[in-house]
Amino acid sequence: MAKGFMGRLTAAARAKQSRVVVGLDPRANLLPAALKPAADADAEAWAGAYAAFCGRVCEIVAPYAVAVKPQIAFFEQLGLAGLRAYAEVVRKAGESGLPVIGDVKRGDIGSTAEAYAAGHLDGGGLEVDAITVNPLFGTDGVAPFVRAAAERGKGLFVLVKTSNPSGAEIQDLVCDGRPVYEHVAELVHGWGESVRAGEVWSPVGAVVGATWPEQARRLRELMPHTMFLVPGYGAQGGTGESISAFFGENGEGAVVNASRSVIFAWRGAPWNEKYDESRWEGAVEAAVKAMRRDIEEGLGR
Amino acid sequence: MAKGFMGRLTAAARAKQSRVVVGLDPRANLLPAALKPAADADAEAWAGAYAAFCGRVCEIVAPYAVAVKPQIAFFEQLGLAGLRAYAEVVRKAGESGLPVIGDVKRGDIGSTAEAYAAGHLDGGGLEVDAITVNPLFGTDGVAPFVRAAAERGKGLFVLVKTSNPSGAEIQDLVCDGRPVYEHVAELVHGWGESVRAGEVWSPVGAVVGATWPEQARRLRELMPHTMFLVPGYGAQGGTGESISAFFGENGEGAVVNASRSVIFAWRGAPWNEKYDESRWEGAVEAAVKAMRRDIEEGLGR
Repeated sequence: MAKGFMGRLTAAARAKQSRVVVGLDPRANLLPAALKPAADADAEAWAGAYAAFCGRVCEIVAPYAVAVKPQIAFFEQLGLAGLRAYAEVVRKAGESGLPVIGDVKRGDIGSTAEAYAAGHLDGGGLEVDAITVNPLFGTDGVAPFVRAAAERGKGLFVLVKTSNPSGAEIQDLVCDGRPVYEHVAELVHGWGESVRAGEVWSPVGAVVGATWPEQARRLRELMPHTMFLVPGYGAQGGTGESISAFFGENGEGAVVNASRSVIFAWRGAPWNEKYDESRWEGAVEAAVKAMRRDIEEGLGR
Repeated sequence: MAKGFMGRLTAAARAKQSRVVVGLDPRANLLPAALKPAADADAEAWAGAYAAFCGRVCEIVAPYAVAVKPQIAFFEQLGLAGLRAYAEVVRKAGESGLPVIGDVKRGDIGSTAEAYAAGHLDGGGLEVDAITVNPLFGTDGVAPFVRAAAERGKGLFVLVKTSNPSGAEIQDLVCDGRPVYEHVAELVHGWGESVRAGEVWSPVGAVVGATWPEQARRLRELMPHTMFLVPGYGAQGGTGESISAFFGENGEGAVVNASRSVIFAWRGAPWNEKYDESRWEGAVEAAVKAMRRDIEEGLGR
């Protein structure tokens, strides 16, 4: 029985035959009409709507997804009320049996990173099962997150190659014949090995955008024991066809995230017709099932 | 009359003859005994102590500092109660006439960065006068912050060269004959020029660690209209002697931050004897005055 987050994620992927993570990115203007508060509602009312919407999405996707990934920025936008809703969504995900990857992208110098690690991985009011981390501060900035993840059976996903086009401005600069993101990959591999303790997957994962399948092949080689979190599927353009490069030969070692294309699926998505808004729950279920099937087929399963 | 944040900061520096920013990094184990809650206190009690401590520090340093920089990580560590305290500290700083640089180091893809920008710069419950931003996502990730700052008369400080030793692992990689941080500096310069609108200092500043005076000289050239926020003075090793490299020839264009060495000064700092803990307020005042003098002397004033 694997005790760490990555082991639990792998076990869930096997049990559910799914590599799908559903991103919870609530946006005021995209909520289903039935859940929208009045136009003049305050942050408290909007936060309540976000919590209700995300909680219901968790219930719907629970049979088909291995985790959810709330994007804390959308909750922070609403201030304290929003962050209270974030904590509520984390609790509701747990009730649906879904582990939570907090998409917080924190990063700072070591003494400050300790505070973030405590808040998000170790007992703080925003505690989740895993978080995303920005590597710009290097080893002493990431070490507190690595330590907290290892000690508490939690996980990290460090930004290696982000899904957005202009990420390349810094990440693709070529240094000593290799792009910056490969240097970061080597750091991530090293951080992971320092705490892997014989497990197949270290507690230190990597974010590698679905939009970069060619680069993913090389990154898979550089980080053989690193779980990939692959954002950018769906609304950002990634497809199941190109997804196999992110996985190891046995079809493990990666989970794929979609946010808008699943949770707002009734607005129309590449793989299903536009639904009537009153049937938004059915659209979410159809979208997460279609995404799971698309990826499993992409892996030849 | 300059309307933007950087113009207001420059005016304050002239009026107060000071380039000092005081970092508000409350740490439970370092609080003065008189403000510490009982050892078994809950997050609510600790958050109250953080707000009281930081609010009092604002009152003490207001005549000598041009801004305060609360580090949100220490508040996030306490969850929702802590973030409520963060908002209270922002309010108290305003009452002391001090603008607030929220040290949040946020960064994400564009559509998500919009949410962070709204929350921290435009009406969210965590709104401040300026924030620190992580550039790893490149132009499309930073653009929403730039836009919000320009439209709302606020400021950004983008991480260019961080003060910690291992920041060099990524930031100092050499690409096309120049380190990554110089490439970032060119991006920052460009982002700033796009919204400078004839002001001396653009709304887009840069974080350049006090620990790198040699690199600062080159960065000053690359970013002639970019205000520098210089952390790492004091506890991290920067001194007034080495500080002139961060400033333009007229002694403007930078503000220098110290956190622990000022707010916990009674515990002993390089420039003053260890104070009795009951006299912590006097120690903070002596430290901020000494720091201001040290920097002004370093600038030959």
